[in-house]
Amino acid sequence: MRQQQSTDPVVVPFLSRADKAERERWIAALGPNLHPNKIVANEDLSSDDRRAARFAIVANPEPDEVAALPNLVWVQSLWAGVEGLLRSLPEHIGIARLVDPNLACTMAEAVLAWTLYLHRDMPAYARQQTRGLWQQRDYRAPKEVGVGLLGLGELGRASAALLSRHGYRTMGWARSPKDLPGVETFHGASGLDDMLAQTDIAVILLPLTPQTEGLVNAERLGHMPNGGAGINFGRGPVLDTNALVAALDEGRLSHAVLDVFETEPLPPDDPLWRHSGITVLPHISAPTGRDSAAAIASAAIHAFVETGAMPNFVDRKRGY
Amino acid sequence: MRQQQSTDPVVVPFLSRADKAERERWIAALGPNLHPNKIVANEDLSSDDRRAARFAIVANPEPDEVAALPNLVWVQSLWAGVEGLLRSLPEHIGIARLVDPNLACTMAEAVLAWTLYLHRDMPAYARQQTRGLWQQRDYRAPKEVGVGLLGLGELGRASAALLSRHGYRTMGWARSPKDLPGVETFHGASGLDDMLAQTDIAVILLPLTPQTEGLVNAERLGHMPNGGAGINFGRGPVLDTNALVAALDEGRLSHAVLDVFETEPLPPDDPLWRHSGITVLPHISAPTGRDSAAAIASAAIHAFVETGAMPNFVDRKRGY
Repeated sequence: MRQQQSTDPVVVPFLSRADKAERERWIAALGPNLHPNKIVANEDLSSDDRRAARFAIVANPEPDEVAALPNLVWVQSLWAGVEGLLRSLPEHIGIARLVDPNLACTMAEAVLAWTLYLHRDMPAYARQQTRGLWQQRDYRAPKEVGVGLLGLGELGRASAALLSRHGYRTMGWARSPKDLPGVETFHGASGLDDMLAQTDIAVILLPLTPQTEGLVNAERLGHMPNGGAGINFGRGPVLDTNALVAALDEGRLSHAVLDVFETEPLPPDDPLWRHSGITVLPHISAPTGRDSAAAIASAAIHAFVETGAMPNFVDRKRGY
Repeated sequence: MRQQQSTDPVVVPFLSRADKAERERWIAALGPNLHPNKIVANEDLSSDDRRAARFAIVANPEPDEVAALPNLVWVQSLWAGVEGLLRSLPEHIGIARLVDPNLACTMAEAVLAWTLYLHRDMPAYARQQTRGLWQQRDYRAPKEVGVGLLGLGELGRASAALLSRHGYRTMGWARSPKDLPGVETFHGASGLDDMLAQTDIAVILLPLTPQTEGLVNAERLGHMPNGGAGINFGRGPVLDTNALVAALDEGRLSHAVLDVFETEPLPPDDPLWRHSGITVLPHISAPTGRDSAAAIASAAIHAFVETGAMPNFVDRKRGY
């Protein structure tokens, strides 16, 4: 959809409930990318700016700030996840997600980083450090460590390739059969149990769907060998957290790295924060760098200002 | 040096001051590898066994246990480091170090693992977890992260290749000029300062020599950019720990991972254990797995029993 646009520089509103320092970092990153257009924080917009605004760049905005732009047509998010915007913005406003081509690469890096974290016993050595305990733990070569990926979409495939290149015994599961070089693949319900029985480190990369909700429950965790560990980089509700905590408390599993939760941010009083067998991460497995996000978001603004081209908006029914 | 040997099965004494469970794990690993010869723990040796023993497998043995074998000719260590044996054993006893061909590979894995640990902000997220703080930190792509290796011997070169393959901006320093694909190399004293000025994560892989002792001192740490971090996988005295702690306390450097120390084990009352900016590891960057060590040590015993071939002994002047 194209229409004739003015190419005069425009004011680009920036709406975010982040703290002032964080907002200033975003404005500093966006400014040069948007030139000659001008990025202006919500509190600095004039009433003329607000009336003129047909688009805005948003990072977790206050709904009131959005409502104060009466002629808003669309927003460009600085994040890939838009669940919050879908809940809070009126239906007539188009929502553009941030689509970062490096996402799979960054996720694969995170899978390797936290697999090494578990394989090289970093949580155990951190506990030893608090006690002043000098004790070497047995080392296993990566080929002796079974890493099982749950989910073989774009993120799972990139992660499997990197793990396999590093020498891990790499396995992967999906609902339907897949064929990947260097990866033992499994499918279907019984295939998941088979894979977990050989998995020292399970990595969840599944999206949340009716089929995946609660998929990794007590029974499935029970298939893992004693001392097994897990990473959830998919979606919180795929994993039954109570079953995980029980398995950790009984000593059947050794550690878990959780980056996603049923409620995010994880509430400050949630006991997961204080469980010594759980590493809590604030949903950072595959972040987009500020500079990349600023460049990608600015490109969408330039395209609209200069040619009238609208970005692809989120399909409100699918949710992405 | 070869001599005619009996090929009758022999008793192989196992001498170690490790605790009973650890000694039993070693005996379980060595037993099948030494078959048809028999591994016997010191406390289970008969006086005939002691008199007959011309060699023993040792893992940090009590000197008294060694002295109780009157006809001992040589010992096979289960470790690569033999400083303790050189100090405690009489000069006429040959000492065979464990030489593991996978050492460079395992060290490179450790360099990548703890580089990712620092790059992906694991220490900062662990501190946030203790406070229940959900806060995403800026992500930088690996090509924006300068990793500088101090030392380009076999371990440094293997590490540089792996870091470079992972996409880090990889730099390396040695005393004399080196040429490595995908690595910016530096040499000499001024080259070290030049490299450190561009280094976000410094990795020490240098041996301890008169030239390297105290090499990474306050002045050199001062060349690193603010927020820089370091890893010492070389030898403790290469790094001036007081200067490191001062730089961490002033907030100029962000974190350090120390696997080697002037005194090992690090004494329980050493304040390094309790410094929140320091990750203490018990010299585990490049361990040999128990199974590999058992196989390598047993091969040396088999060669001697079956053919009389002596392994290469440590040169007491060089110390390795």
